[in-house]
Amino acid sequence: MKVVETIEELQQLINKKSGKTVGLVPTMGFLHEGHLSLVKHAKEQNDIVVMSIFVNPAQFGPGEDFESYPRDLEKDVRLAEEAGVNIVFIPSVKEMYPFEGGIRILPGPQANELCGASRPGHFDGVLKVVLKLFNIVNPDRSYFGMKDAQQLAIIETFVRDFNLRTKIVRVPIVREDDGLAKSSRNVNLTPDERAQAPIIHQALLKGAELHSIGLKPEQIEDEVASYITDGSTGEIDYVKLLSYPSLQPITSETDEVILAVAVKFSKTRLIDNIIM
Amino acid sequence: MKVVETIEELQQLINKKSGKTVGLVPTMGFLHEGHLSLVKHAKEQNDIVVMSIFVNPAQFGPGEDFESYPRDLEKDVRLAEEAGVNIVFIPSVKEMYPFEGGIRILPGPQANELCGASRPGHFDGVLKVVLKLFNIVNPDRSYFGMKDAQQLAIIETFVRDFNLRTKIVRVPIVREDDGLAKSSRNVNLTPDERAQAPIIHQALLKGAELHSIGLKPEQIEDEVASYITDGSTGEIDYVKLLSYPSLQPITSETDEVILAVAVKFSKTRLIDNIIM
Repeated sequence: MKVVETIEELQQLINKKSGKTVGLVPTMGFLHEGHLSLVKHAKEQNDIVVMSIFVNPAQFGPGEDFESYPRDLEKDVRLAEEAGVNIVFIPSVKEMYPFEGGIRILPGPQANELCGASRPGHFDGVLKVVLKLFNIVNPDRSYFGMKDAQQLAIIETFVRDFNLRTKIVRVPIVREDDGLAKSSRNVNLTPDERAQAPIIHQALLKGAELHSIGLKPEQIEDEVASYITDGSTGEIDYVKLLSYPSLQPITSETDEVILAVAVKFSKTRLIDNIIM
Repeated sequence: MKVVETIEELQQLINKKSGKTVGLVPTMGFLHEGHLSLVKHAKEQNDIVVMSIFVNPAQFGPGEDFESYPRDLEKDVRLAEEAGVNIVFIPSVKEMYPFEGGIRILPGPQANELCGASRPGHFDGVLKVVLKLFNIVNPDRSYFGMKDAQQLAIIETFVRDFNLRTKIVRVPIVREDDGLAKSSRNVNLTPDERAQAPIIHQALLKGAELHSIGLKPEQIEDEVASYITDGSTGEIDYVKLLSYPSLQPITSETDEVILAVAVKFSKTRLIDNIIM
């Protein structure tokens, strides 16, 4: 496995003329089994797997956890190597953003729901870094976890509407044995909160059941919210049942739906979802 | 020469695996010698030259001349073939914009000056179509005329800041014998206006001279504006001396400068510039 810090080194290593296929796994590091599942899928479908590790300042708002976002590069490099990544790209902020011409990519109505509602500008920063990574790596396929379902939906729309030259592969959420979705932010839970956190997934399963028996979206959202607040110290940021990937209110023509939640604990905010 | 209307046909024809270099000449059609100069440069530097002809609705504002923008596809195809274009891509609006997820690309401060000041949203539409064309064609080099100097500056910034995988080649303005910059819109001038229009270039040359002897930007702008209004029925939209390509006020550190004008005649608005 090669570890590179500059775009130039990375592009020399990839050398697309070889005819080999390239899979990209973009991450912000502090790797867990969710990321390693992305790598596993990428390895099955491509000759070369490139993982980027970059805590992207552009997608953190003022007062958000950019500074305290967990980092452990040494462990990340070891885990990436064990998982079979071929090239790890760890650019500095200066390498990624040496210039600032002020051009921004603004998401559409998909960004007004769920996390977008409380994180203005977040998805601008996501689109900025993914467009740059897609152009730098030129991957045949790019792997995104379904835990960040809104991010995935917006990126799929970006690829579709702007003819980006990579295929987006959706990878299912990886969970702890007790159902908690794996997340780099889980380490910021107190032991008490960690013990309570599996209630989020239980509430989602209950919501899915209520959806299958035909309850209305508002009723389902209320039930899921009550279930979480009754059984934990977490505060509800949102519980929403929407169409997927358009993230609009459900109509008779809706095919896929997402039940998504965000819950705030003392030092961290967790998200989870089920797509049905 | 092949003429294609769909992205799929185009991509089958290009077949980048062949190792051939591709030059893209994006146009809105109604070709004149300015466009053919782009083709000439592209032919010298690439194995395959792709010209797109697409009057892009996204870059016209309400009340602008989208409907009356001159079109003559039959002549365009003939001129493109004579110039040695290999593939002409003439997509429908539906082929280019089959979906609308609402994602927008917003230019930065460069768009607040010159044409951007009176054409809100114009450069959003330009960035949208060029990102799509770059992704569809995947050109090694893309050719833009220096007549649309603000467009060129913003596209250069987009390519630089987002690592787009094409090199932008600047191609000098082509002029009529009397100095009028070639433009598809020149056909919308009345005979009287056509006779007056060369004053724009004369005024720019005068401005360049005043710049070379050290006059201040405001003085030069005033002189150029008076020269045009005194000698024609055109109304000044702007006369501006700015840094290039940043399009900011000139400072002691400015390297290249642009003197740019836009003049409105009865049915059309002409732009021209000199970069020094």
